[in-house]
Amino acid sequence: MNRHFAEHAWLTDGWQPDVALAIGDDGTLAAVESAADAPRLGRWVLPGIPNAHSHAFQRAMAGLAERQTDPDDSFWTWREVMYAFAGRVTPEALRDVAAMLYVEMLEAGYTSVCEFHYLHHQPDGTPYADPAAMSIALVEAARETGIGLTLLPALYMTGGLDGRPLEARQRRFGHDVDGYLRLVERLHGFDDVRVGVCFHSLRAVPAGPMRTVLESLPATLPVHLHVAEQEAEVQACLAARGTRPVEWLLDHMPVDFLWTLVHATHLTETEVRAIAARGATVALCPTTEANLGDGLFPLRDFLVAGGLWSVGSDSHVSTSPVEELRWLEYGQRLRAHRRNVAALPHLASVGESLLGHALAGGARATMQPVGALEPGQRADLLVLDEDAPELAARSAENVVDSWIFSGSRNLVREVFAGGRRVVADGRHVKRDAIAARYRRTAAALTP
Amino acid sequence: MNRHFAEHAWLTDGWQPDVALAIGDDGTLAAVESAADAPRLGRWVLPGIPNAHSHAFQRAMAGLAERQTDPDDSFWTWREVMYAFAGRVTPEALRDVAAMLYVEMLEAGYTSVCEFHYLHHQPDGTPYADPAAMSIALVEAARETGIGLTLLPALYMTGGLDGRPLEARQRRFGHDVDGYLRLVERLHGFDDVRVGVCFHSLRAVPAGPMRTVLESLPATLPVHLHVAEQEAEVQACLAARGTRPVEWLLDHMPVDFLWTLVHATHLTETEVRAIAARGATVALCPTTEANLGDGLFPLRDFLVAGGLWSVGSDSHVSTSPVEELRWLEYGQRLRAHRRNVAALPHLASVGESLLGHALAGGARATMQPVGALEPGQRADLLVLDEDAPELAARSAENVVDSWIFSGSRNLVREVFAGGRRVVADGRHVKRDAIAARYRRTAAALTP
Repeated sequence: MNRHFAEHAWLTDGWQPDVALAIGDDGTLAAVESAADAPRLGRWVLPGIPNAHSHAFQRAMAGLAERQTDPDDSFWTWREVMYAFAGRVTPEALRDVAAMLYVEMLEAGYTSVCEFHYLHHQPDGTPYADPAAMSIALVEAARETGIGLTLLPALYMTGGLDGRPLEARQRRFGHDVDGYLRLVERLHGFDDVRVGVCFHSLRAVPAGPMRTVLESLPATLPVHLHVAEQEAEVQACLAARGTRPVEWLLDHMPVDFLWTLVHATHLTETEVRAIAARGATVALCPTTEANLGDGLFPLRDFLVAGGLWSVGSDSHVSTSPVEELRWLEYGQRLRAHRRNVAALPHLASVGESLLGHALAGGARATMQPVGALEPGQRADLLVLDEDAPELAARSAENVVDSWIFSGSRNLVREVFAGGRRVVADGRHVKRDAIAARYRRTAAALTP
Repeated sequence: MNRHFAEHAWLTDGWQPDVALAIGDDGTLAAVESAADAPRLGRWVLPGIPNAHSHAFQRAMAGLAERQTDPDDSFWTWREVMYAFAGRVTPEALRDVAAMLYVEMLEAGYTSVCEFHYLHHQPDGTPYADPAAMSIALVEAARETGIGLTLLPALYMTGGLDGRPLEARQRRFGHDVDGYLRLVERLHGFDDVRVGVCFHSLRAVPAGPMRTVLESLPATLPVHLHVAEQEAEVQACLAARGTRPVEWLLDHMPVDFLWTLVHATHLTETEVRAIAARGATVALCPTTEANLGDGLFPLRDFLVAGGLWSVGSDSHVSTSPVEELRWLEYGQRLRAHRRNVAALPHLASVGESLLGHALAGGARATMQPVGALEPGQRADLLVLDEDAPELAARSAENVVDSWIFSGSRNLVREVFAGGRRVVADGRHVKRDAIAARYRRTAAALTP
């Protein structure tokens, strides 16, 4: 048991002064109490932020898809680059890329991550000797770095809403239902990993298999899927099924608080209200959605409807939760031509509102005991750099706003993940070794 | 004379291998030649980026205006917070805030800055004993940190397009024409500062004084003004003058390549083409324009028309040129629902296009010999961190894209400004001392 003193700790109702945090030997918070009789951790201590959506391997291609390949460059031309890159990733490479990525995430303040994982097999579609080899690479990277892992093996069966078979370059992704259920069962054997159900998208999983999977697995698992990211996807669904993708999903699947809809960019007002009413979480990925030109989520309407959301770094063109939160808000301002869009009248400020949503929604998306400093939660703590000029003369009233809206330097100084101090003085304790390994791997991966 | 070897240097036509850069004792580049016989500076060496628009004092209020003060929070409610803050800034405080800001800018890759400076007098409007005291504070901060300064003292005369007098809290900003011309003349006495003409906005400077100032000063000075940032400003100009602000400006003033129009967010297609045809530069400030909910500049149309643009950090909610460039492009993608908007067909990639424009347009806006690695230019150099995982396995073909689109860590390792190495290993050589002074000043400034 280790006790730490925070001058201010971010509890469920916001900042509280003089808080002692006791971390048990199992890596969870044993006690959170009003007291000052422990070694000082820092002036500003917050819960670590859950990352609700990650495709780890894509980190290694950041910056490789920004050459114009087509006068109408789009998500779909980006996907060509991504497929070519995905074809070269081995289990060892995935472990090295993910470990580097998780180092970067932890340094920036993400302490848990949902891996939306669809790169299962060898490039020709043959399973590895251990069919879970690629999943296990992610588990190893999480263990090495300390990040909390919610592993979401994705079911990917078809190449379109018409049920066409997978293309050659999609064969790495594919499973039949039985193979998928065996993979999920195998992964349940890892004590330190939360496993969930994951459907890549409506175009990749027909309705029948989706139902079979849901009926075959315990109804306590988180369920994630990509939906309504692109206008073309909405149009394709209208053409094939006569309804919009979110509309179809809500009408045909038991969507509830266990579900996380990733992106959900293109929604009608009815869909916005229906998602909120079902209690599903939306995983917003502002930097990726901007990079891919997806569009802007109707955040204000969703907040007014009481919707729950989280943030994800998705393709990892950024690894900073602060950039996601800031630009989630900024996108809304640019569209509405007003300020502080995410701040609802009863909330203190837009920064606190953004942080509160990302923590609560992120905890729901990961389905882990994270996102709050409370007894029984995983001891995931961020200590801000109280000496940073950006936070000079800041009080509890405005320190979160200044963290999110003061610019580009990382202001996270120390990070505890599962009770272990994994970041000290802004650097992951294993950064140098993991970076050296990553550089060799990147050289082998990059065309 | 010092010679340095760059494995790759960013010259006017892009990356060139094996370049030797000779820096003269006067801080300019004496020679740029194909050679490798000098101590190695690094793998990737670029020109420093000019910052085309800064109000230094606003850096100290980053994060203080993100609380919802009004259900229709806007630029205009933000301005109330800014006025209150501006009222407390002394010359000493301005020097300390600007020095800290310039440290942050240099670390992030800005090596010169246009200070659009309107905080001239004591809070009640009385000039300081030295009427240039506030301007000199900025000069001192630039000298202390090494950043190149283009000082743009702003003329501010009226509180609206109807010619109403300044409000009490605007009195610090005000000059009559004679007082303004004396200030400009005084500042011309500083050898190491480029001085320009600056009109705060159409609402602050009537047409007559604008013409008088232009006729009284050499027609070789840069001219900057804020224009068309907000829809309300366009509507007010239509009501008062029967034309839109940019339309009015182009019809009534000798706008040419010496002029920089700051923001120019709300334009008609005719205005877009006319600005480009006149050769004026537009200073875009994406992070501030997002923070204030201004809107999105019509970048693609302006590029097609051959327009020249630069970036500025303006209110300093970010101090990173990379964030400005990335989000300039991302804003366009979010609006157009496509990718790589700023990449014109003849340019290699969107990252290189963004960087090339920011350098060329920034040099024009500052009217200094900066923005290129050429003999006679100020020796402003950035050395990227070649060991950064983000740049692992990157080649000349994609390193700029990966710098701009790989996330949030600062990848600038060393910076030379005016021939002096001011940033080593990512930190300004005076950061600690300047930060200590800044923290005391921030405590005195912040309510």
